[in-house]
Amino acid sequence: MEPTSIQKYGAEAFGTFVLTFFGCGSAAVAGATLGTLGIAMAFGLSIIAMAFVIGNVSGCHINPAVSFGLFLDKRLSAKDLIGYWAAQFIGGIVAAFALAFVIVSCDLGGVLATGLGCNGFEDASTVGLNLVGALVVEVVLTCIFVLAVLGSTADAKTAPFAGIIIGLTLAFVHIMGVPLTGTSVNPARSFGPALAMAVQGDATALSQVWVFILAPLAGAALAALIFAAFKQKQK
Amino acid sequence: MEPTSIQKYGAEAFGTFVLTFFGCGSAAVAGATLGTLGIAMAFGLSIIAMAFVIGNVSGCHINPAVSFGLFLDKRLSAKDLIGYWAAQFIGGIVAAFALAFVIVSCDLGGVLATGLGCNGFEDASTVGLNLVGALVVEVVLTCIFVLAVLGSTADAKTAPFAGIIIGLTLAFVHIMGVPLTGTSVNPARSFGPALAMAVQGDATALSQVWVFILAPLAGAALAALIFAAFKQKQK
Amino acid sequence: MEPTSIQKYGAEAFGTFVLTFFGCGSAAVAGATLGTLGIAMAFGLSIIAMAFVIGNVSGCHINPAVSFGLFLDKRLSAKDLIGYWAAQFIGGIVAAFALAFVIVSCDLGGVLATGLGCNGFEDASTVGLNLVGALVVEVVLTCIFVLAVLGSTADAKTAPFAGIIIGLTLAFVHIMGVPLTGTSVNPARSFGPALAMAVQGDATALSQVWVFILAPLAGAALAALIFAAFKQKQK
Amino acid sequence: MEPTSIQKYGAEAFGTFVLTFFGCGSAAVAGATLGTLGIAMAFGLSIIAMAFVIGNVSGCHINPAVSFGLFLDKRLSAKDLIGYWAAQFIGGIVAAFALAFVIVSCDLGGVLATGLGCNGFEDASTVGLNLVGALVVEVVLTCIFVLAVLGSTADAKTAPFAGIIIGLTLAFVHIMGVPLTGTSVNPARSFGPALAMAVQGDATALSQVWVFILAPLAGAALAALIFAAFKQKQK
Repeated sequence: MEPTSIQKYGAEAFGTFVLTFFGCGSAAVAGATLGTLGIAMAFGLSIIAMAFVIGNVSGCHINPAVSFGLFLDKRLSAKDLIGYWAAQFIGGIVAAFALAFVIVSCDLGGVLATGLGCNGFEDASTVGLNLVGALVVEVVLTCIFVLAVLGSTADAKTAPFAGIIIGLTLAFVHIMGVPLTGTSVNPARSFGPALAMAVQGDATALSQVWVFILAPLAGAALAALIFAAFKQKQK
Repeated sequence: MEPTSIQKYGAEAFGTFVLTFFGCGSAAVAGATLGTLGIAMAFGLSIIAMAFVIGNVSGCHINPAVSFGLFLDKRLSAKDLIGYWAAQFIGGIVAAFALAFVIVSCDLGGVLATGLGCNGFEDASTVGLNLVGALVVEVVLTCIFVLAVLGSTADAKTAPFAGIIIGLTLAFVHIMGVPLTGTSVNPARSFGPALAMAVQGDATALSQVWVFILAPLAGAALAALIFAAFKQKQK
Repeated sequence: MEPTSIQKYGAEAFGTFVLTFFGCGSAAVAGATLGTLGIAMAFGLSIIAMAFVIGNVSGCHINPAVSFGLFLDKRLSAKDLIGYWAAQFIGGIVAAFALAFVIVSCDLGGVLATGLGCNGFEDASTVGLNLVGALVVEVVLTCIFVLAVLGSTADAKTAPFAGIIIGLTLAFVHIMGVPLTGTSVNPARSFGPALAMAVQGDATALSQVWVFILAPLAGAALAALIFAAFKQKQK
Repeated sequence: MEPTSIQKYGAEAFGTFVLTFFGCGSAAVAGATLGTLGIAMAFGLSIIAMAFVIGNVSGCHINPAVSFGLFLDKRLSAKDLIGYWAAQFIGGIVAAFALAFVIVSCDLGGVLATGLGCNGFEDASTVGLNLVGALVVEVVLTCIFVLAVLGSTADAKTAPFAGIIIGLTLAFVHIMGVPLTGTSVNPARSFGPALAMAVQGDATALSQVWVFILAPLAGAALAALIFAAFKQKQK
């Protein structure tokens, strides 16, 4: 039997919560000792942890850009695209506020100052990329990531372990991207922490968050185009 | 033929011994040079090392919270739950005393002072989480971990490499959790070292160990609830 | 249906672009914080990211030495060898100039000075290997890498996840090679950055690049010989 | 058709060469920047690189203790055990001398002083384990490692990716073992570098090498016993 819409949207909200809570949480709480590779693994392994829990329910997109790419590849209906997007943003927002609550209530004030794992550019914590640079970086990173999703899930032989491939690819796009923009490639993962930081009084990330919504969606569209160009009339 | 109860409980004791001896041992002996990612990999890889040795015997739970989750999902009998729990605690205790013995007999006294990889909170070696924070963190971390166990072993297509998925997920929940509580998610892995440290004269960990027994079991129950909510009448 | 030549060569150009842009980009932008293991993972994961996107199209060689090894093993035609080589060099060159453009246009001048991830020897950024040492190292590293490609793709049981094996092996040959030559094992990945640096006024890498073209091809030939020696008349 | 004895022994010599050259080479050349996790990955990934090249030829033991464990489990004949052992020691010796030659001829004298990745105890580069400690550690580490080999290759469902499991387990036993003994678990990997260092004038490692021959073989025997105890009369 098919999963119900509630199950599917619930799964997406839950999965996006986990990705955001753990990915951004690891960067905020332990970023200094983890280093770039450790943060990359935190995000990447969140996919591996979730893929085999909710993969059979919703496909484990947990990322509006991934849902957009699958919609453009005609594997997701317009109705589900909207439902998935809503669920993913809700998951990301709840995760960011839960993370801020845990940090504040546990008197980890110094940790909160590091910014909840927000994405950004033109600031001191990164190499100082400008706006165009941030847009280009996020389009390219998301394109590669969504291509790996489209490719690994399309082939019946690789689909059973696609979650591992996709998780490792998410780690991959963090390795180069963390020092540049912090790597979003996921609008829901960027919006939640930006909103939570604004409520805490720092609106920098929220003022930049449109970049991390638009560029990942554009990257997903580019990925769908490239994937279509490589398609063969198989069998 | 089915494995005997002795084989099953023996496998669980042995596997929990390996997880505790190597995971806690790596943290105690080499934690400073390994860093958070290295410690996370030590625990995670212990699952991968053991899953393909005792997976066909006992299922390689090697964690009372995992056994509890599988019991709630009706994949483990009440009798085996009790047997597994006893075996796992025995394995964890023997591992901790063996580790303490190796360290003391080898004159690695400085190493012992780091605490045998005990879990804890409100102390200097972590970010200083309070009791509520520690409870919340362990419930959430265990819930994610047990969900990955429930999900990856339920599907015949992913079950052959479930050990890899579960191991990577255990590494995942250590990445964020090591600086917070040291990450338990496993009552047997926490109780053994706490007891061994108490015998050495430091009862701090033992006085806190109820947190690392109750919270993981609660997290496993939460995981079973979430997993049930996502279940489809498949077939 | 078979992929067209345009699709195959396009896939190789695109894949080599990704490997070079991300691998060399990670080394240039974040090498200091990533360390040897992080750089090794950046290159290795680029294979995993691409293998499941273009593997069904072109085989995802994205490396002239790999194509040469498969040609010698009679799995690639002479015509495709030439086409693949042209596509791979184009991909590597475009990637290097794109990387230099991003770095310069984003005012990351300090980053460019680190050399775009060029390969080299007898210089201060490495342990100071001499010419013979660099040749030997690259022949050996490439031989191991191409052997893993030849072996993992030849067996129907391992072919579905050969991309993971090959990616991990590419990471493997970087672990020892990064401090020696920066690890090329891939003429296209070396030539692009060397050319882009020469245009920026630093011709050191370009003057040495013949080493990183000849030695990988020799290593691939050696791999084909060893692989043939191990072949059994199977079935 | 079956591989010939020459192919099998040649494969074992070659594979042991690669494991020793790259594993010990990474530790010697780049140990300081790699850290414990990087060295562990170098040894672990050497198995993954080789398993899919020579796995179908000789089984890719590349370790006398592994061959001994498989002999005790009645999967290797006495004749092949002797042949494999000879081949493995030859591979390890040639690798160590090749490594020393590369280092000396490239004027990397400072690197040689770090000891070619030799195993040892009671010295300054480790935590200062005594003889009994070194014996215990190597028996335990080898037992876990050989168990993973016996288990992952015995099941037809996991055998195709056993190389990945075994490689990750080798990395696992290095994480805790590197600061203790450097982790041998492999007599051929220990003997070669010890001999090459003795020729260079430092006989410390050679005088201790019996520990790293006897203890791994004892660990393999223990693994075979434990594995037999867990065996079920399946089917």
